[in-house]
Amino acid sequence: MLGIIEFLAVVTSAVYGIVLATRKGLDVVGVAVIASVIAFGGGTLRDVLLDRRPLFWMAHEHYVVIVLALAVVGSLMPRPFVWLGRHLALPDALGLALYSLTGVAFALQEGASHLIAVLMGVITGTFGGVIAEVLCNEIPSLFRPMPLYATCAFLGAWAYLGVSHLGWGEGVALAVGFSVIFLLRMGALRWRIILPAAKV
Amino acid sequence: MLGIIEFLAVVTSAVYGIVLATRKGLDVVGVAVIASVIAFGGGTLRDVLLDRRPLFWMAHEHYVVIVLALAVVGSLMPRPFVWLGRHLALPDALGLALYSLTGVAFALQEGASHLIAVLMGVITGTFGGVIAEVLCNEIPSLFRPMPLYATCAFLGAWAYLGVSHLGWGEGVALAVGFSVIFLLRMGALRWRIILPAAKV
Amino acid sequence: MLGIIEFLAVVTSAVYGIVLATRKGLDVVGVAVIASVIAFGGGTLRDVLLDRRPLFWMAHEHYVVIVLALAVVGSLMPRPFVWLGRHLALPDALGLALYSLTGVAFALQEGASHLIAVLMGVITGTFGGVIAEVLCNEIPSLFRPMPLYATCAFLGAWAYLGVSHLGWGEGVALAVGFSVIFLLRMGALRWRIILPAAKV
Repeated sequence: MLGIIEFLAVVTSAVYGIVLATRKGLDVVGVAVIASVIAFGGGTLRDVLLDRRPLFWMAHEHYVVIVLALAVVGSLMPRPFVWLGRHLALPDALGLALYSLTGVAFALQEGASHLIAVLMGVITGTFGGVIAEVLCNEIPSLFRPMPLYATCAFLGAWAYLGVSHLGWGEGVALAVGFSVIFLLRMGALRWRIILPAAKV
Repeated sequence: MLGIIEFLAVVTSAVYGIVLATRKGLDVVGVAVIASVIAFGGGTLRDVLLDRRPLFWMAHEHYVVIVLALAVVGSLMPRPFVWLGRHLALPDALGLALYSLTGVAFALQEGASHLIAVLMGVITGTFGGVIAEVLCNEIPSLFRPMPLYATCAFLGAWAYLGVSHLGWGEGVALAVGFSVIFLLRMGALRWRIILPAAKV
Repeated sequence: MLGIIEFLAVVTSAVYGIVLATRKGLDVVGVAVIASVIAFGGGTLRDVLLDRRPLFWMAHEHYVVIVLALAVVGSLMPRPFVWLGRHLALPDALGLALYSLTGVAFALQEGASHLIAVLMGVITGTFGGVIAEVLCNEIPSLFRPMPLYATCAFLGAWAYLGVSHLGWGEGVALAVGFSVIFLLRMGALRWRIILPAAKV
């Protein structure tokens, strides 16, 4: 099941990256770089921090083929991706939810504690987007008042762990974790739920 | 003894990060991210480069709890941190000195040569701040004429190694290394000691 | 033979970094940082991703001595480096070609597939420059219409692999790969060969 989730995380993240990159008018190399960074960045950091070898995209080489093929298609025929771009929040929220859950689950497999596993989920879910912003030299979303993002991954990771302990099976736990992250993120966008700034 | 130094390095670096982040008016997630990056960034890079596993903050999970708790407290009650902010140079210099020494000592434990150990000390001491600047999209201090920073870590690391060889005990060597880095940094700030630019 | 190529890659990349850094009027620490990042960044990422230990610059410590010595010389006597700066494209293209080939070859040695080896070549050849741009807070070249860069590494890596399979010997394959990357890059600069942007 984690394999399917990881596969979907790669595809939705790559689509998100391609929409971003074609919007900015990058060439095919730029589109491939941004798509790869967003699709593989978070999972790579997770694997390096946990010392999981080989890295997930070396172990599943078809991920690389798919992302590069999508990037080439997206460069040549950006129209369907532009259409998707109007619903950009969707692949972004899907990638966040799916990648965060793989982070938690793989960290537990490596013997990490609950707290470390939750943090690994948040890092895996959010890091690709952070690197992409740094590469694009944008004002990091950390510094703009933005609807909940890392917070969704954090709460959903705990929900997944909590339901795991109830013994209803891994599938139910993953479904609950996914729903919490995905719905919380879409809700935060819809109603602009924003954390207050530290009041100095 | 290294355990105590590392603990103090984590706390002082986290305080430094929280002051920086609350000043910029970040929300609690932003404060936690900046505090974690500054407190754990340099040591994480050190551990990844040296292949020390598990990473120091996974092996000492209470570090993570402390930094996150400090970040939450700092977001809700930033006043004491603002007060500390007037003395921001202090936690910064403490973190630089303490982290640099852990970098040197752990590198030696892994069998690194003196030169590599010194570089690992400089990287450990300075890298957290560098990533924080990159995340905050600031003009990197590398490009502004700034009082000695990496230089202090570099000289203090050699002082620590030199005294280690005199056989006066690890405690004396650490104390000398700490004093060199800390006093040099505070002195460089006080008297604005700046390296000359390459004269083209 | 790979040892010689790696040595030359380190030296040409360091020279490139020193020219860049002295031009910007950095002090000796800044020059050393930029030279080290450009000379060691790509190879370090390659080694961390492939889990090759110890890192190449820890295993070949004289690389570090050479880069730091060049950085000090470049800070004190920048004139010869300024002169080189008029031919900046040369060390840049050399570093790109040499480092990319080490990336491909070392990845194959670690048992990577052809596709992964090619990507590792591109990453090794280009990453040092990417980090340097991020550290310098520049508009990443990804986002300016630029002559072919990563593309040269990509095509040269496949050329090297292709010739390797013909059984004419490693030396011929390396020479062909080198020529493709180096000449393509110099030609792309000379005739401003630029990939078209994704047409939205």
